[in-house]
Amino acid sequence: MKVAKFGGSSVASAEQLRKVASIIQDDKERKAIVVSAPGKRFSDDIKVTDLLIELGEAYFNKQAYEQQLQAVLERFREITAELHISNDVITEIKASVESILESNQTDAIKMDALKATGEDSLAKVLSAYLQSLGLKASYLNPKEAGIIVTDNPGNAQILEESYAELYKLREREEIFVIPGFFGYTNDGTLNTFSRGGSDITGSIIAAGVQADLYENFTDVDSVYSVNPTIVENPKEITSLTYKEMRELSYAGFSVFHDEALIPAFKADIPVCIKNTNNPNGIGTIIVSKKEPQPNPVVGIASDTGFVSIYVSKYLMNRELGFGRKLLTILEDEDISFEHTPSGIDDLSVIIRESHLPKEKEERVVARIKEVLNPDTIHIDRDLALIMVVGEGMDSTIGLADKATNAFAKANVNIEMMNQGSSEVSMMFGIKTGEVKEAVKSLYETFFTE
Amino acid sequence: MKVAKFGGSSVASAEQLRKVASIIQDDKERKAIVVSAPGKRFSDDIKVTDLLIELGEAYFNKQAYEQQLQAVLERFREITAELHISNDVITEIKASVESILESNQTDAIKMDALKATGEDSLAKVLSAYLQSLGLKASYLNPKEAGIIVTDNPGNAQILEESYAELYKLREREEIFVIPGFFGYTNDGTLNTFSRGGSDITGSIIAAGVQADLYENFTDVDSVYSVNPTIVENPKEITSLTYKEMRELSYAGFSVFHDEALIPAFKADIPVCIKNTNNPNGIGTIIVSKKEPQPNPVVGIASDTGFVSIYVSKYLMNRELGFGRKLLTILEDEDISFEHTPSGIDDLSVIIRESHLPKEKEERVVARIKEVLNPDTIHIDRDLALIMVVGEGMDSTIGLADKATNAFAKANVNIEMMNQGSSEVSMMFGIKTGEVKEAVKSLYETFFTE
Repeated sequence: MKVAKFGGSSVASAEQLRKVASIIQDDKERKAIVVSAPGKRFSDDIKVTDLLIELGEAYFNKQAYEQQLQAVLERFREITAELHISNDVITEIKASVESILESNQTDAIKMDALKATGEDSLAKVLSAYLQSLGLKASYLNPKEAGIIVTDNPGNAQILEESYAELYKLREREEIFVIPGFFGYTNDGTLNTFSRGGSDITGSIIAAGVQADLYENFTDVDSVYSVNPTIVENPKEITSLTYKEMRELSYAGFSVFHDEALIPAFKADIPVCIKNTNNPNGIGTIIVSKKEPQPNPVVGIASDTGFVSIYVSKYLMNRELGFGRKLLTILEDEDISFEHTPSGIDDLSVIIRESHLPKEKEERVVARIKEVLNPDTIHIDRDLALIMVVGEGMDSTIGLADKATNAFAKANVNIEMMNQGSSEVSMMFGIKTGEVKEAVKSLYETFFTE
Repeated sequence: MKVAKFGGSSVASAEQLRKVASIIQDDKERKAIVVSAPGKRFSDDIKVTDLLIELGEAYFNKQAYEQQLQAVLERFREITAELHISNDVITEIKASVESILESNQTDAIKMDALKATGEDSLAKVLSAYLQSLGLKASYLNPKEAGIIVTDNPGNAQILEESYAELYKLREREEIFVIPGFFGYTNDGTLNTFSRGGSDITGSIIAAGVQADLYENFTDVDSVYSVNPTIVENPKEITSLTYKEMRELSYAGFSVFHDEALIPAFKADIPVCIKNTNNPNGIGTIIVSKKEPQPNPVVGIASDTGFVSIYVSKYLMNRELGFGRKLLTILEDEDISFEHTPSGIDDLSVIIRESHLPKEKEERVVARIKEVLNPDTIHIDRDLALIMVVGEGMDSTIGLADKATNAFAKANVNIEMMNQGSSEVSMMFGIKTGEVKEAVKSLYETFFTE
């Protein structure tokens, strides 16, 4: 059994839904279908989920929400009309929105129920359309499927007990279409996952049914080996491990919401990224393990907006607890850090700039001075990280040499370098202004030579 | 004013003391002289300090100590006879040892007083010898000089209040010879510094008198750029900064006891390492700052006996406090760590093998599993660290490239690489068995090409 999840752009219009149906028809293994709410049809379009959020906010602020409601209804009216299926869903949405707003629930729970309406309605539309094409298909509510979640509106977490129930879905003969993005608490209240939560639903279903494959249909052919705005027509990645994907997405590759993949990762389900608009393209497959490659580097990612705190003290190395005390100060200030490279008597902490705003800087520096009495402390903003990623890098002689050579060729100074903790990446810190040159040079070194 | 400290081999015999006197005579600025106890004259010889320790242990164990006492006396008898000076010191040592052993002090304090006898007697001998040569010189007891220390037998620490008193030594017209290795507590009890403590005394005196130079006379011409047992006839280092010296000594260069230099470092006194047997050699000078060099690398050091704990967990990066919790476990187990290189979802902790004995390993691993629930944890022993050291490395483009190229040429895999936290070094972790090949290749790259 395969789980196929279709994202917002794949279900944005009747035209797109026709492609979806065709994809489903192409492979009998595609029986578990997960859908997002209709996304943008063109760049200035508004996603159905955003319309529903606006609707809710208007209502809570005691403003008119008719306009947003009509816009949502219009999206579905257009789709059902063009697909020549019943427009019962329009009446259902209207009734459902009214009943949600008039319920005795908290605003947070009302908002979750509103937001989920897009996915829920689209799942109904798609199953009706598949039926109209003569396929055995039905809509499946997440409650009926068995998706039980924590009581945490807007950020619900799946409960382990769900999986036994979900496993029973394997017995179904016909196609079932499940709306993504939400589940139900043990007392039956709808709660949504975090934004991007349809990927989470797909991943949960894939883990639950122990799918042979979790296909994630989106609007790109595959994951590129490097940011295509830096390098023109870069090589596509055909196969990635979870670890590789995670390291790439850390430094700017926005393929997946990281947390979305956890259920699939834990259940060891391969994940395939495919393009609804080019379903025969090879796509990118994400797996747990892959065969060693002659060129182990699969991708080069870069991200800006990092800052480093540098602390040095003669004989720091001898002070038991020095590093821990520094980290405790940061934790106490609610600053999560990324890395802590250290020399003998010096230590740097790399932090995302958003976690160390200027107003915290002075206080943090003062506390470090007070507690640790360092010889030197200074803060460098304007730091970018570059990740060179690939399984097997840790055991390939000469890779560090190739990478550092690429920086030297581009005349870029390496401010920081970190290799060997991760078995699948090397990390470099450079000045933000030099990212493009460095990435281009690395790409040439690892992909075109 | 210069402070000249002469180590154990420089004062091991009458012949060596003649060289010392000649060095003192050569430069009128050499007025503050600090001496060790007589060291080895040949490789199987026993240092006077070791004889004194054996003597004390024999006494505490109620065994005969006459043999050790005679051996100490014989060393001084030989020296005074050959230098044609009074042998009063022999009687003094005998009386002093008896009075120490019969005193009402604790064993620890008795031992400290015994151990200090070697330095103290040698200082008396040297000042008598200098006088016999017609120089204005006198023995100066550390108490009279003003070396006040904490009450901590065998590991005394200098008290800040000493420095005001020591500064007055500047006013002295004549040469004064101070025994190294010990000071006195505020209540007048003799306490020794840690082993190698004559370097500490020299450093304290240099800081106290705000010396123009602290000359440390030993039996090597200078510090080599690389371990001479790995590379034949390596380049000598003429000038080092404190930071460079510290990074080199961390990874196996045993020039100085690190802590010995703290007083001189804090007072910004340049330190010169010279050879008593070749006083006109250029030596190695240690300073706070130096001019930028075209080849910033000054030395390559290596040390074995490291172990790494590797921990990985999907989305570890998102867990606030993950790193801190890990370090807290180690601190709780009294394990000091060296470095904590990290990837995105993985973290390694590098520890000296002596700090993580096998019997602790199992417990530590179990605690990490319990507290942090990682996906993977493994321990790698057999790790060596290589440091490439030099001020200005952080701003020299292409150095990482040269270094990593040297590893690749030697066909050595880099297990770990860390650059940029320290401004004066790059650190590499490799398998212990590959150290020689790697160091040779690095030396060729940075010093012979």
